[in-house]
Amino acid sequence: MRYAISIVGMVFLLGLASQAQAVDEPENVIKYRQSVMKAIGGHMGGIVGVVKGEVSYVDDVVVHARGINAMSKLLVGIFPKGTGQMESAKSRALPAIWDDFSKFEAAAKALEIESAKMVEVAASRDVGAIGAQLKNMGKACGGCHKPFRQKK
Amino acid sequence: MRYAISIVGMVFLLGLASQAQAVDEPENVIKYRQSVMKAIGGHMGGIVGVVKGEVSYVDDVVVHARGINAMSKLLVGIFPKGTGQMESAKSRALPAIWDDFSKFEAAAKALEIESAKMVEVAASRDVGAIGAQLKNMGKACGGCHKPFRQKK
Repeated sequence: MRYAISIVGMVFLLGLASQAQAVDEPENVIKYRQSVMKAIGGHMGGIVGVVKGEVSYVDDVVVHARGINAMSKLLVGIFPKGTGQMESAKSRALPAIWDDFSKFEAAAKALEIESAKMVEVAASRDVGAIGAQLKNMGKACGGCHKPFRQKK
Repeated sequence: MRYAISIVGMVFLLGLASQAQAVDEPENVIKYRQSVMKAIGGHMGGIVGVVKGEVSYVDDVVVHARGINAMSKLLVGIFPKGTGQMESAKSRALPAIWDDFSKFEAAAKALEIESAKMVEVAASRDVGAIGAQLKNMGKACGGCHKPFRQKK
């Protein structure tokens, strides 16, 4: 009997837990993808510092490029329908994403391609070449941010 | 003669450029490592969202763990002497780092070890196991932040 009650209790608690957790609620997905964007931003900032000649950590560029490349592959998956702008969560994701999702996918793919090239270029440790490729990556970032992100 | 002047001019300009760039000035190193920390924070946030059950992106955990692991290997190098707290740059890095650098190195190494374990654990896609390892990673973060970072 004790056992039976504890099972019931556990199932009940589990039910509460999953209700509280609200897996993949739009607000949660938005929060998650902002973490992903934060990671991309951190890695980008690192490369920018090297290219600007602020720091000499040229050996780190490959690591940052790998990080961005890995994150770029997540982008399409973290913009499911229904996770655009809403009152309950701050997001700058515009409806245009879902109006033309294949254009969005292509834009995300561009970052994947350019960041993969950066992984290669970084191996040269040539800050000039890294800077040139950073411009291409920047264009790829803009390829999403311009049409699909609300201006501040 | 023209040629000679242009070489002199170039060397002069190069001198100006390197002065303006101020490679590895403490302020620049601080800015760079804050980018690295931002990347770590973004990747951590992603794992936390999965462990809290907010999102179901359990497949992404391995990517975030790899990112943190790669960044953890940079930590010792981005805290050179003379890049602590100063008037010209906001940093919470305490003098304790350089008072006992081997302790700092050990703390950074702990994150490297725990994030490497997270890469392994993530392959299981077992959110419970990932959560347990996240605790170990959190302890490793605290192992640096508690003794070596000024409280807010």
